[in-house]
Amino acid sequence: MDPAALHRDAIVFDGLIVANWSREVFEDMRRGGLTAANCTCCIWEGFTDTMKNIARWNAWFRDHDDVILKVRTLADIGRAKAEGRTGIVLGFQNVSAFEDQLGYIQHFKDVGVGVAQMAYNTQNLVATGCYESEDRGLSDFGREVVAEMNRAGMLCDLSHVGSKSSRDTILASDKPVAYTHCLPSGLKEHPRNKSDEDLRFIADQGGFIGVTMFPPFLSRGIESTVDDYVEAIEYVVNVAGEDSVGIGTDFTQGHGREFFHWITHDKGYARRLTAFGEIVNPEGIRTIGELPNLTAAMVRKGWPEERIRKIIGQNWLALLARVWGE
Amino acid sequence: MDPAALHRDAIVFDGLIVANWSREVFEDMRRGGLTAANCTCCIWEGFTDTMKNIARWNAWFRDHDDVILKVRTLADIGRAKAEGRTGIVLGFQNVSAFEDQLGYIQHFKDVGVGVAQMAYNTQNLVATGCYESEDRGLSDFGREVVAEMNRAGMLCDLSHVGSKSSRDTILASDKPVAYTHCLPSGLKEHPRNKSDEDLRFIADQGGFIGVTMFPPFLSRGIESTVDDYVEAIEYVVNVAGEDSVGIGTDFTQGHGREFFHWITHDKGYARRLTAFGEIVNPEGIRTIGELPNLTAAMVRKGWPEERIRKIIGQNWLALLARVWGE
Repeated sequence: MDPAALHRDAIVFDGLIVANWSREVFEDMRRGGLTAANCTCCIWEGFTDTMKNIARWNAWFRDHDDVILKVRTLADIGRAKAEGRTGIVLGFQNVSAFEDQLGYIQHFKDVGVGVAQMAYNTQNLVATGCYESEDRGLSDFGREVVAEMNRAGMLCDLSHVGSKSSRDTILASDKPVAYTHCLPSGLKEHPRNKSDEDLRFIADQGGFIGVTMFPPFLSRGIESTVDDYVEAIEYVVNVAGEDSVGIGTDFTQGHGREFFHWITHDKGYARRLTAFGEIVNPEGIRTIGELPNLTAAMVRKGWPEERIRKIIGQNWLALLARVWGE
Repeated sequence: MDPAALHRDAIVFDGLIVANWSREVFEDMRRGGLTAANCTCCIWEGFTDTMKNIARWNAWFRDHDDVILKVRTLADIGRAKAEGRTGIVLGFQNVSAFEDQLGYIQHFKDVGVGVAQMAYNTQNLVATGCYESEDRGLSDFGREVVAEMNRAGMLCDLSHVGSKSSRDTILASDKPVAYTHCLPSGLKEHPRNKSDEDLRFIADQGGFIGVTMFPPFLSRGIESTVDDYVEAIEYVVNVAGEDSVGIGTDFTQGHGREFFHWITHDKGYARRLTAFGEIVNPEGIRTIGELPNLTAAMVRKGWPEERIRKIIGQNWLALLARVWGE
């Protein structure tokens, strides 16, 4: 099967997109042949502001129902594929939206949230992020949050979480958990990158790794190409096995300086945590619409079709089926 | 069919209960052979406090799943009947929980709210309540709220709403609306009671009337019996027709002085709106557990079985099917 046809035929699932949402982005998702993606609707916000973000998403689902639809179940992803639309899994990069209320977890599940990250870069009520001076591990309240997310059927994401908090969560969770978007520190040392040991640990516990291509975490930075991205994915596959890996691009399409200021400061405004410099996605996959080039690069790399289908989306669906209880 | 057997066999739907929720109340619902009810979870609260109330309900649904279940669809009511449990339709007596956000309506629908009253006793952003000095009608924002409730599939309740705001809502709504719990002013003049003209108007427009037995609005007050309640229901049936009428008891079981202070003051604490005096439900139907006596009183009144089945629950289900879009 030629690469373009394979991409068109495959289930393509992206484990993280945090774009500046617009009709243009949604149309680019279609151009990229994207079946479904985990789309961020909370980073630093609390309960009410996150509910307002989701209300805005609901308006987009109505206004752009020719190109996108809300995903609550695996069947919705199947529907998206069949109808040539892109399924949106609403996801949080921070449990800040839960505030101090365990009961809000089911509410968010009810309004369509399928994934939530235990901490974003710093320490919150639940866990410690990867830029905190010390990882103090999962809190006792955090254990209750994990249990309630397990019960409600919401994936625990650990991408921006520290190593100790991640291990605590992996062990506390009855359901598989994920690094939805990360890179291996074996290719570049960075607070956001994961050691081989950590990658192996999550996979051994039944968990999952979505590999990102966010330039600051790639060894060649903004000089990278789509082939470097496939190289990084292959590295993770070699560590964790090809059934536990998918993609989680971290496309920030459409965002400018204000957004990057907001995400690189604690709580969106406090101390600076990191500086990214210029963000230019790898050549060949600068935009969501170029996703077919990723499949082509996998073919170029000599991957068998079965591996490509798994990594480009099928593995993600198997994970979500287990977590969402379907 | 003897009255007890008829009650056991029938679908029994109560259009309004605002009890002091507890295991005891849920067990009394089973004693009363109650299939399902519209149960109040918001009176004066805003968005966040109402979401907390619903989180508490979700915990009750888990803790007491042998006797109650959450109703989102007609099928859930059927399941409640089949399994000998009581279905809980979460309902608001005030749109205060929507605050100024149309998008919150779908969120509440998603977490299980099936009914919302356009105003509670006084004026809000949407409409004017029945104790306000002047009924200023449905606001322009209120028209947007009605349209969004129609779209989401949430019943507009007008029981505590003024006559003009009620008519505005009845005409603005594409779906049938209801007085879920009211009495006719033809039997007693009271700001909360509805004129024959108003009862006829809502029925003529495809709407619905649930008849209450809240003693302050009954002509014989706390001297009333279950037969007076059936008398009042029959009065409404004679005005509006037997297909447009059901029950909406307004059981306040378990509540004390603090609750009645809260509901009789604007916003729960401001100026006093009315004084109820002692609340004692009609003899024969003092508690939810005595609901079988209501069916018995209907039989005693000589109603044919078909009318009893309609009024005690079947009509309610037909209404909800139309509003919820099933």
